[in-house]
Amino acid sequence: MMVATTSQSLSLIEIAQKTRESSRQLAILSTEARNQAIEAMAEALEMASHEIIQANEADCQAAEFAGISQPLYNRLKLGETKLKATIKGVRDVIKLSDPVGSIQIKRELDQGLILKRVTCPLGVLGIIFEARPEALIQITSLAIKSGNGVILKGGKEAIKSCQILVKVIREALINTQVNPDAVQLLTTREEIQALLELDKYVDLIIPRGSNEFVRYIQANTIIPVLGHADGICHLYIDKEADIEKAISITIDSKTQYPAACNAIETLLVHGDIAGKILPQIAQALITHKVELKGDKLTKNYLNITVATDEDWKTEYSDLILSIKIVESLEEAINHINTYGSKHTDAIVTEDNNVAEIFLNKVDAAGVFHNCSTRFADGFRYGFGAEVGISTQKMPPRGPVGLEGLVTYKYQMTGNGHIVDTYSGENSKSFTHKDLLE
Amino acid sequence: MMVATTSQSLSLIEIAQKTRESSRQLAILSTEARNQAIEAMAEALEMASHEIIQANEADCQAAEFAGISQPLYNRLKLGETKLKATIKGVRDVIKLSDPVGSIQIKRELDQGLILKRVTCPLGVLGIIFEARPEALIQITSLAIKSGNGVILKGGKEAIKSCQILVKVIREALINTQVNPDAVQLLTTREEIQALLELDKYVDLIIPRGSNEFVRYIQANTIIPVLGHADGICHLYIDKEADIEKAISITIDSKTQYPAACNAIETLLVHGDIAGKILPQIAQALITHKVELKGDKLTKNYLNITVATDEDWKTEYSDLILSIKIVESLEEAINHINTYGSKHTDAIVTEDNNVAEIFLNKVDAAGVFHNCSTRFADGFRYGFGAEVGISTQKMPPRGPVGLEGLVTYKYQMTGNGHIVDTYSGENSKSFTHKDLLE
Repeated sequence: MMVATTSQSLSLIEIAQKTRESSRQLAILSTEARNQAIEAMAEALEMASHEIIQANEADCQAAEFAGISQPLYNRLKLGETKLKATIKGVRDVIKLSDPVGSIQIKRELDQGLILKRVTCPLGVLGIIFEARPEALIQITSLAIKSGNGVILKGGKEAIKSCQILVKVIREALINTQVNPDAVQLLTTREEIQALLELDKYVDLIIPRGSNEFVRYIQANTIIPVLGHADGICHLYIDKEADIEKAISITIDSKTQYPAACNAIETLLVHGDIAGKILPQIAQALITHKVELKGDKLTKNYLNITVATDEDWKTEYSDLILSIKIVESLEEAINHINTYGSKHTDAIVTEDNNVAEIFLNKVDAAGVFHNCSTRFADGFRYGFGAEVGISTQKMPPRGPVGLEGLVTYKYQMTGNGHIVDTYSGENSKSFTHKDLLE
Repeated sequence: MMVATTSQSLSLIEIAQKTRESSRQLAILSTEARNQAIEAMAEALEMASHEIIQANEADCQAAEFAGISQPLYNRLKLGETKLKATIKGVRDVIKLSDPVGSIQIKRELDQGLILKRVTCPLGVLGIIFEARPEALIQITSLAIKSGNGVILKGGKEAIKSCQILVKVIREALINTQVNPDAVQLLTTREEIQALLELDKYVDLIIPRGSNEFVRYIQANTIIPVLGHADGICHLYIDKEADIEKAISITIDSKTQYPAACNAIETLLVHGDIAGKILPQIAQALITHKVELKGDKLTKNYLNITVATDEDWKTEYSDLILSIKIVESLEEAINHINTYGSKHTDAIVTEDNNVAEIFLNKVDAAGVFHNCSTRFADGFRYGFGAEVGISTQKMPPRGPVGLEGLVTYKYQMTGNGHIVDTYSGENSKSFTHKDLLE
């Protein structure tokens, strides 16, 4: 066992080293060269469609045989329509503006001494995703677009699909300026743990999957992790809420896609409006097959199960909603800041002052007024792509587009400038003149 | 022992909770209210100068008695001149532009549905610093400026100085809109470990001190850490280097302040120019009392100690320099990317193409051409303040100003907008119109 593990780790280190090396080349390619590689990838995937769909069908049959659930089967199944749409998505990535090489600061420190802050690729991404073959295609195109190498690990049910996809993509890259070694596939579960230890070779881990899985990854690596373990989102209906908006936003936030992380789990209702609004909302929710739980005060208006402290901490990811009646805006904000996961929380109110306090004081990546929490999404925000949603406090926070796959460096050019000139007595002053408007 | 630790932790949690609560109030104060609090702090420090200097003298006497080294004593000693300069620095912080409330994105998603990305405070900072009382004053003014609560832990030799400073600052805050509980002082070493576990209450740890100390902090917390463990910086003298610039930049980068993290530890010299340039550089370095070590090839030109692999990994933080002769630009870049700490690396060359390759391919927060590595500094970059230097890959990277103490949130305002309108058949399209020019 020891021997097997060691040999496994060694070969993974070799893979990671190759990815690192080829990512250094990829990082300095022009926008055109990276876009050409993505186009080559799209063409090769088109050419190999038949082969890809066959491999995916083999995965699907094996999964069916193993008794996979219907939702997971639907995710695993690629099929011609989904593959075509995904390849179209690859070509959309070509059209996205280049996140690399953007100049954020250009400043004269003194005559002839120019400082620039320029965006550049992170280096190597480690992406661990569900058994969903088209995710591999999307991720790889975003990695190449942003100049990063990528080490991929897909869910085990999709192994044949992932293998053929990576084979096709790597072969396509041979005729481009991107070294095929920039794209690597891991196939065993043991390699995940080994990958998490490769902080010398991997700059960012993006885990996709269950909350437990993301939490496990976060706790087991010192590599930065982009992702969120929980999506406990709230909707607060203020006493000055418009009833029509309140009902429609509640229904959308809960039922439009209940498994999404930006769906609400708890509805907070101001006591002054509860009698008027709760029965109507409950009726609408029940029509949408939502199971309701409520705190003691809701008993005055609804005959529903009692919600416990545990409910406020639970992401149901299902058609279940907990309801709490609060006496004030402050109580609502405190509840959210105590139990929320800093993902997305919304208020319904016609009082703009109350809304402003809510947006300022709720500590979350997304704070919304009179709209559905379901808008928290990179595509809806207009990022063109979403590589993940982060509930960490440090940027990048919230839905993260291509911007989250790059960092920056400071480039300075002088003409023999030394610090001694600007130190001690008779020292020269810096001009600090911004050259970007 | 168990009991003591538990009671210690409990009281620290209470402290942290108070800081968290008061930071929520602080976060939403206006620029003026925060600046007024900083001015009140400056005035109170002036009024209490005598008392502060007395407390500091008691610290100095105790440290002298305990046999503190001269450099550490100089850092510990506050004195009237240093205190005055520090209070002037506090007033300079008032003049800095407000990092909070800056709108990074303003975008119409659809008519009446407006998305904004707005900077906001991180929340609570945990700052662990050396026995250097003026650091406490600087850090606290920057924390209040950026709307953050702060939990401070200074080096134990400065305990009396820190206690009086925090007392004076907290008393000054009573008459301002900033709750004094936003500024807290820890006084025991055990509290550092406990602080590192408070990820619910502390959003960012900034450790200042030795490399070992920073590395310890990084390895022992899941709270984000802003800092760098190592500063292994390089200067590469290309075959097309101007000799005068090469000598002057080498001397400045090594000797202007050898203990600084942005001083160079290794000089790389292209083989084609080594014979011409190395004897002159060595002469100049020896005049500046620098001890030289070199690889085998340097033996052809210099009679110096042999540098081993260990030298390439060592931050001397002293007047010692290792020298390596390389056969190509690529070898120089590979050496830097292998042994460097991603802090700051520079090239001296008159060939702009070579410089460009170097700036693009060296993976460091700062990549410089024809200027000293010592320029890598928040004040020199024109940030007005420096809260730390980060050698991590993810932003904030390099010297970090006030910008590093804030994050952002997405605020969205609608008028009853729901996602269902933009989904499925007959779905409405987003307008995605940027409203910031």
